[in-house]
Amino acid sequence: MTTTIIAVDVHDVRFPTSLTGDGSDAINRGDYSATYVELRTDDPSGAVGAGFTFTNGQGNEITCAAVRAFAPTLVGRTLEDFIAEPVAFSRSLTAHPQLRWLGPEKGVIHMATGAIINAVWDLRAKLAGVPLWRLLAEMPTDELVACVDFNHITDAITPADAAAILDKGRVGYEERLAGLESDGFPSYTTSVGWLGYPDDKVRALTRQAYAEGWRAMKMKVGGPLADDIRRAEIIRSEIGPDALLMMDANQVWDVDVAIAAMKELAAFNPYWIEEPTHADDVLGHARIAEAVRGFTNGTCHVATGEAGANKVIFKQLLQANAIGIMQIDSCRVAGVNEVLAEILMAAKFGVPICPHAGGVGLCEYVQHLAIFDYLRVGTSLDGRMVEYVDHLHEHFVDPVRTREGRYLLPEQPGYSATMKPSSIAEYSFPDGPVWAR
Amino acid sequence: MTTTIIAVDVHDVRFPTSLTGDGSDAINRGDYSATYVELRTDDPSGAVGAGFTFTNGQGNEITCAAVRAFAPTLVGRTLEDFIAEPVAFSRSLTAHPQLRWLGPEKGVIHMATGAIINAVWDLRAKLAGVPLWRLLAEMPTDELVACVDFNHITDAITPADAAAILDKGRVGYEERLAGLESDGFPSYTTSVGWLGYPDDKVRALTRQAYAEGWRAMKMKVGGPLADDIRRAEIIRSEIGPDALLMMDANQVWDVDVAIAAMKELAAFNPYWIEEPTHADDVLGHARIAEAVRGFTNGTCHVATGEAGANKVIFKQLLQANAIGIMQIDSCRVAGVNEVLAEILMAAKFGVPICPHAGGVGLCEYVQHLAIFDYLRVGTSLDGRMVEYVDHLHEHFVDPVRTREGRYLLPEQPGYSATMKPSSIAEYSFPDGPVWAR
Repeated sequence: MTTTIIAVDVHDVRFPTSLTGDGSDAINRGDYSATYVELRTDDPSGAVGAGFTFTNGQGNEITCAAVRAFAPTLVGRTLEDFIAEPVAFSRSLTAHPQLRWLGPEKGVIHMATGAIINAVWDLRAKLAGVPLWRLLAEMPTDELVACVDFNHITDAITPADAAAILDKGRVGYEERLAGLESDGFPSYTTSVGWLGYPDDKVRALTRQAYAEGWRAMKMKVGGPLADDIRRAEIIRSEIGPDALLMMDANQVWDVDVAIAAMKELAAFNPYWIEEPTHADDVLGHARIAEAVRGFTNGTCHVATGEAGANKVIFKQLLQANAIGIMQIDSCRVAGVNEVLAEILMAAKFGVPICPHAGGVGLCEYVQHLAIFDYLRVGTSLDGRMVEYVDHLHEHFVDPVRTREGRYLLPEQPGYSATMKPSSIAEYSFPDGPVWAR
Repeated sequence: MTTTIIAVDVHDVRFPTSLTGDGSDAINRGDYSATYVELRTDDPSGAVGAGFTFTNGQGNEITCAAVRAFAPTLVGRTLEDFIAEPVAFSRSLTAHPQLRWLGPEKGVIHMATGAIINAVWDLRAKLAGVPLWRLLAEMPTDELVACVDFNHITDAITPADAAAILDKGRVGYEERLAGLESDGFPSYTTSVGWLGYPDDKVRALTRQAYAEGWRAMKMKVGGPLADDIRRAEIIRSEIGPDALLMMDANQVWDVDVAIAAMKELAAFNPYWIEEPTHADDVLGHARIAEAVRGFTNGTCHVATGEAGANKVIFKQLLQANAIGIMQIDSCRVAGVNEVLAEILMAAKFGVPICPHAGGVGLCEYVQHLAIFDYLRVGTSLDGRMVEYVDHLHEHFVDPVRTREGRYLLPEQPGYSATMKPSSIAEYSFPDGPVWAR
């Protein structure tokens, strides 16, 4: 019995979030969108693998075109091929002899690969009848190691290193799982401090979030420094000295500007500064991290990853001691397999993971990755929390569920990526009713 | 009098080069292609700005889609806007509030930006009635500096640094220009050693190139090491001990594999090892460079750049002392303006530039950049040469001209990017006669 991919359907789904200022930061003002992929199969149950990559609105048609470019590589292949030779499968996309030029392994072409590979994992987990986090967390070590393409990262981690980490991660597994089942996974909220919100809205949202139980909140910075300071004062005054306040500059600063700004913003005791400069600037992040550690006595970390192009960038951020928090993203890199490489490297270097979420569907995706990381790799909740943004969950068949600032364990089979057919129809661009109006 | 962009036309032009093994290397087997852009204007002469980005065949429709995504940003804008505020113009593309997410500043979206911005420069040079190299080389310093977006690179070069370099570059300008007019610009050939060629073809092509006057040749490596060694023996035996032999691994090696391979290949006295590992791996290149300098007494350099995503990657390669040769590319980054940033950083760090060419149209483009660099920035031919590949020049209105292994100065107005209408028609994908057959 094999399950064969018989068609690759792509939907350009866009939500008009730019109208409200949700998601506005120093550099992005987006319409949260998904390049939504359905892998249709010959499985008698009609099983469909669902995956997507997140984009910011305009250009979502470009990632859709990239998915279509890979379709001939996918149709006719089986899930069993993927399971037997996961690296060969993912390299047939990431090292495609013609399409690789368009990256290599970055940007549009890599994001499309991420949507596709995530859809294959969704299919696999659905057919196995388990949520993705459980499929991964309970997989034999050698099978997990075989999922990782170590090409270009062997100077940081070897298959033997990975196996040792994953074997060690079996110890205490049941206790950790029981803890998650009763208490959920820690998270923080980014819904309070978008740049597009006026001060009174920031204050009201912060107060509300605190009342709801959130003790970690993130604000956007990178506007005029006086504005950043004023907004930081508002939030810190609302949450008191003990709750965590994170700051996110969305890459807008130059290296020396970042250092100067953080010297001022350090007064508000930030827990991390996220994306202080360009996402590709490993050496810049290293300089900023060293400076910030210096003037905060190590209490403020540099965090980045939502725009981290691939495992080679993450490898260097770790090698250069440039990050104290690694923010993996679920669909900018080439899907679950590449994220596994990143999670394992973070463990090797002792850096905790706090995944990037928000957008549309990113919370649904990354909860699985964070739970797997804790259960089988990182094994500690110290410094681990998942971003939470309260947008657009209603469009998913198996949306995230939270309680008092914690994610509850996903229970349905798959990767929680399946969107409601009614939402796909309503928000399809440009012909869905929302956009045709 | 203003010149307004009234339409952006995009052509998907592909040449079936994969049929012959031309352009085959350790990772690419391509159909050399161009995402070809025409900026139509209201100029009474009918002037059209022509630009393109190079791709490897499949997926060229994706970069075409990316150019179309920018079209609404371009139509109605004037050449005079671009001249007056070049950074604002280029940031309207590179920092687009929605499209930036698809990079940021890398891959498909950045390559599309490169095609567009190059087309604007082609238009500008055509209307000025001069070849691009002359337009740039004779531009006042402050105007040139104003073309550079220093965002994210001020930790490596400031506007004042750039101005000092460009002012100094005026000294001796006329002598250097006279030298180029009489002797042309040095180049090297990559046509002898593609991986897809059998040994006897490599030997015959090497012998022919040497007879034609070439004293610098590049071979592809990164296959089985024994094959690389055998091919290096063939070429070195044909060209003697004094001619330069360069090697190009096209990113196929891991860091430690690269070091081990170069220990063996050092026997053939390579002048550089190009793309020894993943293009994003700044720290990996730095380690390889240090090792190779060690066991070759500094005679072999690490070179990279054709897949360098943007100025932030080039900045770090220089800061980390990871390259001894910088290989700028004309259309992977955001066009002439971003290349100016790279050329100026290379000068600041004292690293010579040997541009990447080949593909389709890249020789036509990069000759202008190399000539500008020599005339106004680098001011020395020591270690400077432009790649030359003898493919597909016949499709251009103003093709490169060479004599005894040297590029002759382009004379026609513009950026030499204009393709013959008959070639566009013949090779358009998928409906042109070549592909419809």
